[in-house]
Order: sequence, then structure tokens, then C-alpha cells
Amino acid sequence: MNRSSKLSDKTIVCLLVLLIFCIPISSLGQTKPNIIVFLIDDMGWQDCSVPFDQTASALNARYHTPNMEKMASQGMKFTNAYATPVCTPTRTSLLTGMNAAHHGVTNWTSPQRNNSSDNPDLDLQAVDWNMNGLSPVPNIPKTVFATPFPKLLQAAGYSTIHVGKAHWASMGTPGANPHNLGFQINIAGHAAGHPQSYLGKDNYGNLPGKASAQAVPDLEEYFGTDSFLTEALTLEALKALEQPVKNHQPFFLNMAHYAVHTPIMADKRFVQKYYDQGLDSMEARYASLVEGMDKSLGDIMQWLDQKGNASNTIIMFMSDNGGLSLKPQRGGEAHTQNLPLRAGKGSVYEGGIRVPMLVKWPGKVAANTVAKQYVMVEDFFPTILEMAGVRNPLLVQSIDGKSFLPLLKNPSLQDSSRSLIWHYPNKWIPKDGPGINYFSAIRQGNWKLVYNQRNGKKELYHLSKDLSEANDLSNSYPDKVLALSKLLSLQLKQWKAKMPVVKSTGKSLPFPDER
Amino acid sequence: MNRSSKLSDKTIVCLLVLLIFCIPISSLGQTKPNIIVFLIDDMGWQDCSVPFDQTASALNARYHTPNMEKMASQGMKFTNAYATPVCTPTRTSLLTGMNAAHHGVTNWTSPQRNNSSDNPDLDLQAVDWNMNGLSPVPNIPKTVFATPFPKLLQAAGYSTIHVGKAHWASMGTPGANPHNLGFQINIAGHAAGHPQSYLGKDNYGNLPGKASAQAVPDLEEYFGTDSFLTEALTLEALKALEQPVKNHQPFFLNMAHYAVHTPIMADKRFVQKYYDQGLDSMEARYASLVEGMDKSLGDIMQWLDQKGNASNTIIMFMSDNGGLSLKPQRGGEAHTQNLPLRAGKGSVYEGGIRVPMLVKWPGKVAANTVAKQYVMVEDFFPTILEMAGVRNPLLVQSIDGKSFLPLLKNPSLQDSSRSLIWHYPNKWIPKDGPGINYFSAIRQGNWKLVYNQRNGKKELYHLSKDLSEANDLSNSYPDKVLALSKLLSLQLKQWKAKMPVVKSTGKSLPFPDER
Repeated sequence: MNRSSKLSDKTIVCLLVLLIFCIPISSLGQTKPNIIVFLIDDMGWQDCSVPFDQTASALNARYHTPNMEKMASQGMKFTNAYATPVCTPTRTSLLTGMNAAHHGVTNWTSPQRNNSSDNPDLDLQAVDWNMNGLSPVPNIPKTVFATPFPKLLQAAGYSTIHVGKAHWASMGTPGANPHNLGFQINIAGHAAGHPQSYLGKDNYGNLPGKASAQAVPDLEEYFGTDSFLTEALTLEALKALEQPVKNHQPFFLNMAHYAVHTPIMADKRFVQKYYDQGLDSMEARYASLVEGMDKSLGDIMQWLDQKGNASNTIIMFMSDNGGLSLKPQRGGEAHTQNLPLRAGKGSVYEGGIRVPMLVKWPGKVAANTVAKQYVMVEDFFPTILEMAGVRNPLLVQSIDGKSFLPLLKNPSLQDSSRSLIWHYPNKWIPKDGPGINYFSAIRQGNWKLVYNQRNGKKELYHLSKDLSEANDLSNSYPDKVLALSKLLSLQLKQWKAKMPVVKSTGKSLPFPDER
Repeated sequence: MNRSSKLSDKTIVCLLVLLIFCIPISSLGQTKPNIIVFLIDDMGWQDCSVPFDQTASALNARYHTPNMEKMASQGMKFTNAYATPVCTPTRTSLLTGMNAAHHGVTNWTSPQRNNSSDNPDLDLQAVDWNMNGLSPVPNIPKTVFATPFPKLLQAAGYSTIHVGKAHWASMGTPGANPHNLGFQINIAGHAAGHPQSYLGKDNYGNLPGKASAQAVPDLEEYFGTDSFLTEALTLEALKALEQPVKNHQPFFLNMAHYAVHTPIMADKRFVQKYYDQGLDSMEARYASLVEGMDKSLGDIMQWLDQKGNASNTIIMFMSDNGGLSLKPQRGGEAHTQNLPLRAGKGSVYEGGIRVPMLVKWPGKVAANTVAKQYVMVEDFFPTILEMAGVRNPLLVQSIDGKSFLPLLKNPSLQDSSRSLIWHYPNKWIPKDGPGINYFSAIRQGNWKLVYNQRNGKKELYHLSKDLSEANDLSNSYPDKVLALSKLLSLQLKQWKAKMPVVKSTGKSLPFPDER
């Protein structure tokens, strides 16, 4: 019996052709994994109950992040993951695969166009940086023109969703709107870098006559309610995922919480136990922000489980810079909030740039593993494209990141020849702090060179022996200082990185190898 | 030669099964038409250069809407199309298929929850209407729970996009967010009913410390630019259409302009010629708002042409109520702006409810045709579902609208037995106006009964002989008054429509058949 012979050649060719056209957006056989970047704002390396150091600290004991613990137990912990010292440079690196010194968005972008967020300085002129942020189209003044990876994911059949803080570009430029960066759905993302309020009762800032540029958009259904911003964003994210999950369409979710950035407001669901512990009230509120963020992570993992999608979903947890360590914005003594790491947000010392990072990918990433190899935020770009099977994408930029997919498969891989670079030719706060305002740095292997652009001072640290960057070894290892200075300068010049200009001479400050 | 016999039965069955699963969301052979509802806010029946009356008027000569003319020449003009007297009731009827007396959202919704927009009255108590608007989920106080058709279109494979004014529900309720009503993409729609400003230079209202609940969301990329709101919305709509068009996915676009609602601000691209004509300056600005809206229509039609999608796209042009006719909000004498129609927005007289309507559907709707049969906004619901091939949808509401698809195929169809009903048991403005505040009305054939709820007065008009509702025939045709009173009352009672309550007695005002 051969009924197939009843079908003509033509019919079968037609069927096959139809199939070929169908499959790319078909609901059948979703082979591409779902990808979630769970990005926290201003969360320090110690701001959780998962120890990223070799031993658990007092801070790890203070914070309650059971869902991060669960995620770590199910996946890989990166103990040497880096971001840039402040948010927009990190977010731009994430979306473009470029180092901040290369994309030139070296400071946080003001909501207002052509408005540098740099503080004025007596001696130095503000550097001419890309103060309007990232642009997906060319010829927008003071922006970096680049191809954001969500555009590529979208073209590859992904449903692309941004929820929460965007802060990629200033108002009046295309990058202000996440839609233009490749996100089909944008919830609550705009030009601002923090929420005016976390409270539904405050309409997240949208009170008539009181709204600032930081009033959070898109959440009117929660106005006047008790929904904390972190919770509202989570609910909206899950709502947005309903459709791709139903259609078996792969999704990319950029779950970019406004938490735990200032204003440090109590998340009522969690704050009482921190008050009860006798914590400084600011720090109690901060801990509640952290726990609310962790609950969001748990809710999303639970939802994926319920939908049967957990096994095909990669979650990558990351913070956009180190924990804030300024007084009076934080409680306790200044620059102690990330101990044993030195300093905090804004600094090129480890406290400003080393961040918690976790990756969960059932079946692909072994449970309860630890990767010690250093990685950096621009590495997400090639990693995510590789995860999504996007090969040889058409990009307008050359990328600096390196896929950490091999590391996910084998966490023992080591590469001590790679160099990571930080470059911050800007003035973040009015008064210079430790590693804060006009600094560059380079890490290669366990060596790290810190370069003070203003006074030319170079410090050298050995990170595995001196995580706290307490012992400057520059005098003992002049050759290492020289080598790293050269490597750093070479790379900065290749990227056409800017240096601040001395007002009195009109000349740029020298690169590290020039003095 | 029969190569097909090389394929086994199993293979072919597999291919067929795969195809069956593929086709619903396949990019091939898009058989469902794209659908655009192009909804204008507060545009009157005479506010264009297309005459909707039998002869062109002075107002038709004043306005320049060449793209509406083009659309009319390519499709069908409805000369007896109706909305409700104000916006939210119309928008709710559009999305639910229910008459306003049935859904109970009889007045415009305040952005603030549980806040009736009704003006206070000395004698009458505000009616207990659904002041929080439309809800897609049950048990939200003071809302109508209904299934909005975009949810059904989305389930049927449509890409569903809302751009512009939403105004379906108050902040703090799910309906405030168009996402919850079935729109996958929402641009600039929220709980407010008008824009704070049409100007990019004003950030559409989002100026720190000055923003009201009417500040337009989502358009930060145009902040500080010269982009007029109408233009920005059009650009964003076309951007949102790129993807479904590229994927050959059918789309539904609710292009709901904020224009031509107050604040009546000049669209600089067009206003000068109206000033030059010596028009009252308010009316010159108004005409520029109208022309800017028309340009948007033209831009969308042109874009569809360029993309090769015009032939498979239905466009339905409609306004949400009659033209505003109050002084000093409009120039000229009060209630003359919609002549020959009586009164304007807020009124149950024709000026408040009869609106311009055009439908273009190449190959399906004959060019340059006119339909005189009366239709109403709730008719869009079954019409759109029929166009999209959605049969027997699961609805939580019973619908009142009637598909006008037969009319699109044959504009000479007539049904003079159908009755249309308006019910406005609310106080729109502080001082009663012509047909404004506490009125109901019914049209059957050419007869129209107008019922003043406050004083019980009934007026009867014959619309084909007396379009301006100038000659009250109630004394001459008492039987007609009686019959229409009964019909109106019966229907209102069936829908459990509310009547205002007399403060002194605590009793509801009588239905028209009760006095």
C-alpha cells in the first residue's frame, strides 16, 4: 500500500516550500531558548545572602535573598563579574557589546538633551562625551550609533520585551524610547535613571504639578494602590510574557528593575524585620528594596515553572554597577557598604565595578557551580547572540565583549591574558572620592592598575591576594605598572577615548603611558 | 516518473500535520485583512472638506482634508453615522459592542479613580454610573466587565496596536492600561482624555513640576523638538506597523488621535493660511489641528501603498462625538460649529452625536459610494470581528451592535425598523445646554425622539425633512411620541440603565414612558 503516490510531485514540493516558510515563526518545536536578563540598579557585590566572596560576610547575613540563593544553587555564580562605575555606560555596553571607553557614553545621561551630567571642576573642563547616550540611527549629535542586540533578536524571531529602567539616551533622541532599540514592548522605561517614587500611592511620581522627569511611565493601573514599583513591574513583565509563551515564540526579557537605586524607600512587605534588627533606618529600607527585588526574581522563576518554561529559559542576574557608598544617601560610614571591596558606585575600585552575577540554564549550565574567570558587561552581547543562534550579525559597531558561553559549559576555563578596561573621564560627584572622578583602570590576570587622570598617580594591586585594594604595589613592580600603563593607553587610544582637558592649558590630560 | 512515491505515508502525514500547526501564525498567505480604526477626538460632522450633508457647506469650504477626500473617493461615506455625546462612552462602546446605556459608562471617566466627572446639580443627585470605565477583569468597582475585541483579534493571530488617546478607564484600575484590553503595543494611551500640550517643545506636558494627569506618555524621543503631537503619533504608529507588515502578520491599529480635542493649539505646519483667511484665531488653530489629523491619514495611506499593503488593509475613519460647540472653548457663536446640525459635543441633538465616517477596503468596498443607513459606534465590534473572520467569540457581555459588513457590500440596504439609543443621565457642563445634561434620545427610521430627563419634555423630529431639529412635531404626532417613548423605555429598562435621582424625594426620575 502506497497512498503517498497519490500526491503529485508538485503538491509535495508545495508542501515543502510552505513548510520552509512556516518554520521560522512557527509555534512548533521552539528550539531557541528564552533569555531573561535580570538587571538590578546600584546593587553591590555584598547586597545579598549569596556570598560572592570566598566566605560569607556580615552583609551576606544581613540581606535576605532566598531566590538568588536558589538560582545560585541551580546555576553558576560568577565571582569576578564587572560592570562600569555608573549606570548608563553599563547599559550601553550591555546593548552594544562595546566597552564604555569605546562607545563614549562614559557617564550617566541626563534626561535633558545636550546636558552633561558632569559636575563642574575648577581645573578641568568637562570632556566631550556622548552625553545623549545610545542611538540606533546615525547622525544624532553626541550619541554612539550602534546596533542594539534586541533588534537582532527580534529579527531572529524573538519577542523582545523591556520592563523597568531604560536610561539609554536623553529625551529628544531616538534612544530615549526602548522601542527604537529593538524592544517590541516597553513598560516603564524612558530617559530617566531612577524612579521619582516607588509607591503606587504616589503614582510613582506622577502627581499633578509634582511630577519630575523621573516620574515612572506606563503604570497608571497601579496608581493610588499599595503596589510597590518592584511588584508592579514584575506583574507587568509576566503579563507581557503571556503571549510569546502561549505562542511558543522565544522571548527576550530585559527585566531591569529600578530597585535598588535611590530614593531608598521602604518596601513595606519586607522592611519591618530589618527595623526590628535595629538596623540604621536607611539601611533597613535598603535591605527591603533588595528583598523586594529578590521576590521579583522568585516570582518570575515560579511563573516559568508553572508555565513549563523553566527548562528552556536562561536567566542572567546582574547589577549595573557597585553599591552606592556615599553619605548621607546611604546609612553607616561612607564607602563601607561593599566591604571587603573598596569604595562603591562611581569608583573604579572593586566596590564600584564588581557586581553579583548568576546564570541559570537548566540542562546546559551545571548546578551549583562557580566561575572565577573575570567577565564584563559587554560580554553579554556576544553571549546572548550565541545563545539565540544569531551568527554573523550585521553590526554598525565593532564589539569588544567576548562570549562567556564556553565558561558556562566549563567554569574552570581560565584566561589571565585578557584585559578589562574602565575609563571614567568624568566628574560624577562634586568632591573627588576613592577612585571616583577622572579615573581609568585595567585588569589583566590578577593585576589591576588604577590611574588617576587628574594627578597622574598610578596604583597597582594584586586582586587575589588583596581583594580590598589596600596595598599599592606600584613601587615594588614598576615593570608591571609600565606594561599595564602601555596596554591601557594603547587600547584607550585605539578606541579614541577622551581625556579631560586642563582649563589653563587647553590640553588633554595625558594617557597613563605618557607620564 | 513519480518521485512522490519515494516519500512514505508517514512523511506526508507529518508534513500535513506540521502545516496545520504552522498556518495559523504563518507568514504565508495572509488571508486576514489588516484593519485600521482611525478615530478622531471631538471632530464634528462638518469639520472637513468632505461634505457629509447632501450639499457642501461653508464649513466644508473652510477645512482642508484632502486625504479624507481621497479616502471617500476610494471607499464609502456614511452620512448617518453616530457616536455618543462624549468620548469614553463611545470608546467603551467601540471596544465592547455595547450601547452606552447598557455598559453604564455614560460619561467621560476621570483619570482619578472613584471620581465622577459629573458636575454638581442643585436638584439632582449624580447617577451611580460606571465612573471607573471599562475593565477586562471582573469585580473592579464601578466598571463594566467586558471582553474587548482586541483580545479576540490578538487570539486570532492579529498584531494589535493602540496609538494615541485611550481613556477607557481610571488610574488604579486595569482598564487604564491598553495592554490589558488586548493591545500588544500601546503608545501614548492612558487614563487621560486630552493632551496637556500638543507641542514637543512642551514635552507634551511632561515639564518637571508642571505635568498634569494629561501629560502624554511614551514620546520622550520627541521632547524638546518641533514635532507636533499628531505627527509624533503617526511616526510611532508607522514604526509599530513595520514588524507585522514585515512578518506578513495581520494587524489591527487603533489610531486614536488626541486631535482635535482641546487645548486647541496651532499646528504650525498648517495654521498660517487659516490666519491669512481672517478666521477667528481659535478657529484658525482648530482648522490646523484638523488638517494635521488629515495629514496623518494621508501619511498612513501613503505608507501602506509603499509597503504594498494598501489593497489588504481596511481603514475606518470615525470621530468619537460631535464637534465641540461651547464658548469660549471654540470661536464664533456657541452651538453654530456643526451647522446645519443642532448643538455639539455633549448633546443628544445631531450636532453632538452625528459624526464623519468613511470606510476604505480596496476590492471589497466600491469606490465613491455613499451609505445612508444609520449605524452606530457599537456596530464596529461585530463588523471588525466579521472582517477578521472571528466567529462565535467567547464574550462576557451581550452585544448591541450590528455588523455593517452587509452595508459595505451593498450601500443601498435600508433598515428603518432598527432603533438607535442615546442615554446621558449625567451632567456634563455646569449650565444645561441644548440637548446637554440629563437627556435620552432614540432614532427609528427618520423619526427621533429627544427626552429631557429633568423636566420630562419630549421632542419629536423628522430627520430627513428637518436635519437641524428645528421643528418639534411632538404635538402633531402624539402616537409616534408614545411609541418611541415606549421603545426607548423598554430598551433602557432591559439594559438596567440608570436615571438621575431627585435629591428632595430620593427617587429616580421617570423613564420616558412613565410621564
